[in-house]
Amino acid sequence: MAELVGNLLVAQSGGPTAVINASVAGVIQEAGRHECIEEIYGGRNGIWGILREDLIDLNDEKAKTIEGLKYTPAAALGTCRYKLDFKKKPEQAAQDLERLFAVFQAHSIRYFFYCGGNDSQDTANKVHHEAVRRAYDLRVIGVPKTIDNDLPHTDHSPGYGSAIKYASATIMEIAADVTSMATESGSCIIIEVMGRQAGWIAAGTVLAKRAAHEAPHLILTPEVPFVESAFLARVREVIDAHRCCVVVVGEGLKNQDGQEVSVDKSKVDAFGHPVLAGVAEKLEELVNQHLKVKTGTVKLGHAQRAAAHFGSAVDAMEAAACGEAAVRAAIDEKSGFMVKLVRMQSEPYKWTTDLQPLDDIANAEHLVPRDWISDDGFLPNEKFIAYARPLIQGEVKVPFEGGLPKYVALERSPVEKKLPPLG
Amino acid sequence: MAELVGNLLVAQSGGPTAVINASVAGVIQEAGRHECIEEIYGGRNGIWGILREDLIDLNDEKAKTIEGLKYTPAAALGTCRYKLDFKKKPEQAAQDLERLFAVFQAHSIRYFFYCGGNDSQDTANKVHHEAVRRAYDLRVIGVPKTIDNDLPHTDHSPGYGSAIKYASATIMEIAADVTSMATESGSCIIIEVMGRQAGWIAAGTVLAKRAAHEAPHLILTPEVPFVESAFLARVREVIDAHRCCVVVVGEGLKNQDGQEVSVDKSKVDAFGHPVLAGVAEKLEELVNQHLKVKTGTVKLGHAQRAAAHFGSAVDAMEAAACGEAAVRAAIDEKSGFMVKLVRMQSEPYKWTTDLQPLDDIANAEHLVPRDWISDDGFLPNEKFIAYARPLIQGEVKVPFEGGLPKYVALERSPVEKKLPPLG
Repeated sequence: MAELVGNLLVAQSGGPTAVINASVAGVIQEAGRHECIEEIYGGRNGIWGILREDLIDLNDEKAKTIEGLKYTPAAALGTCRYKLDFKKKPEQAAQDLERLFAVFQAHSIRYFFYCGGNDSQDTANKVHHEAVRRAYDLRVIGVPKTIDNDLPHTDHSPGYGSAIKYASATIMEIAADVTSMATESGSCIIIEVMGRQAGWIAAGTVLAKRAAHEAPHLILTPEVPFVESAFLARVREVIDAHRCCVVVVGEGLKNQDGQEVSVDKSKVDAFGHPVLAGVAEKLEELVNQHLKVKTGTVKLGHAQRAAAHFGSAVDAMEAAACGEAAVRAAIDEKSGFMVKLVRMQSEPYKWTTDLQPLDDIANAEHLVPRDWISDDGFLPNEKFIAYARPLIQGEVKVPFEGGLPKYVALERSPVEKKLPPLG
Repeated sequence: MAELVGNLLVAQSGGPTAVINASVAGVIQEAGRHECIEEIYGGRNGIWGILREDLIDLNDEKAKTIEGLKYTPAAALGTCRYKLDFKKKPEQAAQDLERLFAVFQAHSIRYFFYCGGNDSQDTANKVHHEAVRRAYDLRVIGVPKTIDNDLPHTDHSPGYGSAIKYASATIMEIAADVTSMATESGSCIIIEVMGRQAGWIAAGTVLAKRAAHEAPHLILTPEVPFVESAFLARVREVIDAHRCCVVVVGEGLKNQDGQEVSVDKSKVDAFGHPVLAGVAEKLEELVNQHLKVKTGTVKLGHAQRAAAHFGSAVDAMEAAACGEAAVRAAIDEKSGFMVKLVRMQSEPYKWTTDLQPLDDIANAEHLVPRDWISDDGFLPNEKFIAYARPLIQGEVKVPFEGGLPKYVALERSPVEKKLPPLG
């Protein structure tokens, strides 16, 4: 095996998760086992910071801080939504790639690990192909991450298990609260969860349902076209049977024409994705107008991706393993791959990691299969449950101080800059 | 001591909390120690259900279910917002009182415990005075409960400690998430918490702040009049210093004229209180308009009062103790009192229970003292922190099943009805 001696750069990109730092911890700890990897650098705020030569020295961190990343939420290195957009901004993208390789060369970066979702894997892929084109010896491995669980080829993505563990427990608690209030005419509560165009998070909250009469009573996913009349009829049925109807809805719910039920067309994020907001309010209006029952909404928001105090132990372990596997792949002369999780069996749950070419990943979307949802489209079925259940097992142990979680913070010693500032 | 032999009725009223069931467990377990108390009944959905003679037999429940109530959120007996409103509906209220005493008599109720906030204590007080007027031998004790912490005379209310423990941890996590995203121009996130006219919950999230630069950067309470220009100037300062400004705001924030910054005047709840919603959105508009930074909002909603998976051990213990103390007071021939929590010292924390006449409680409000908040009005000070810190100590141990909390559910064996149905 040809040994590639040089420095390592790891960075995080896109929305954080409860376990994205566990993947970074996996990279750092595995890198420490290989002598050919000399310095271990972190890029601040993904490529946005790397373009600014904003690197920190991770070998300067205490070992216990690195271990603490395994239960610390958010992006410890900082994150960004900046991308290499050759379609819309070809000159900027070309200039950015040039600059990235100047930074890599200036700091002898030979190992580059980028932890993120679809867009971030696309960035990693572009960096890989550019390295090949330049014949610059660089090993690029993508580390999967997204609460949305929409990365293709991997059984699931680190971050997803913790997101649905938290969302399920919270919905169980909210449902208990709401259904304990007496009402004359019945009530309906609509809880909006994240997930963009994919219904994985919404569907995952079915784990809160332990018995047929329990919440959630309806789960609306973007994969199943929304039909107003069928929805209202079902809510009415549930209220007649149980007095209170608990609805979970994925933010990207679409109607039969494929249009989002609620989208503010004037807003897009930095990746050009529409900003989704307010589908729960849209449904609330409908229920109020047609069924005349007390209605409320809850939007779980950022807590879904940050609630490490209630993280899944399986998820945290897998996230760290993906970071470790990325380093082992690079040592093994691989480049241009994303680490993926492979399920060997569900019951008892067994898994391993493998690699998938980044060419297969970028910008492809993985949605909930239609046959994992009931025929009427209102609840994930036993196939989905068998898939999701193993992912929320076990509780991450978080240390406490004064009654609150005690998360770690990196020292972030800056690496001396060697290039002129970004123009 | 004149022994009063008869049956006990306990019920819950108003918004649930993470520990309102712990108080019911305290009542049931203490009642079991006194032979003069024969049957132990629960009223379904507070007086709303009691008027319908909807009682359940709590002696039929397993001892381990009762013990499990100590970590189970929401109102296990069901709750209501129904009140005896002699001002607005004097005939209905008189008729309701008549019916309540018919139910008490039919079921030989001699001990009545009502667990709730201000309005519920008012109901308990009216029941007490009616019993005296009728010379019906009944011992009525109110058990305090409210996440809003606005009950007077008690040092704090069961439910509050768990609410701010959860809100503080969640805000710590959301802040870590939001501040880890790179932005060119800075960002501002506004998190709305409950509390109605009182700023206790908003103020309590100061416990998430471990260092001066950490979130929350501003905490806006209804006790301090909101001044737009001062708010915007402070947000600007924080963004200039830290790039991201995390604002916590209590739902009942008022301007200098005493008007709520955001209130939908068309809506009132069953107690005639205005429904508050949307103050975070109002502030978001302001920040967007004047500071032109990326802004987001989070509304923690029901999870604040239901998140027993992250309950405070001190709070759960105090809630159970209040239930026990209520029974002991009634056995001790007291009636017309609310149990209150008395702080003996903060560091180390020592507390006990005592009694306060219900006449002193009903409809009085307890707000955050102005001198517990910084002069500029933007952060609770060390006096507040010394008060709040002991209340979030310790973690409630919740059993898990399949990765989710395993809460208990009552069997709810109905008590045979003896009266004609409610007309």
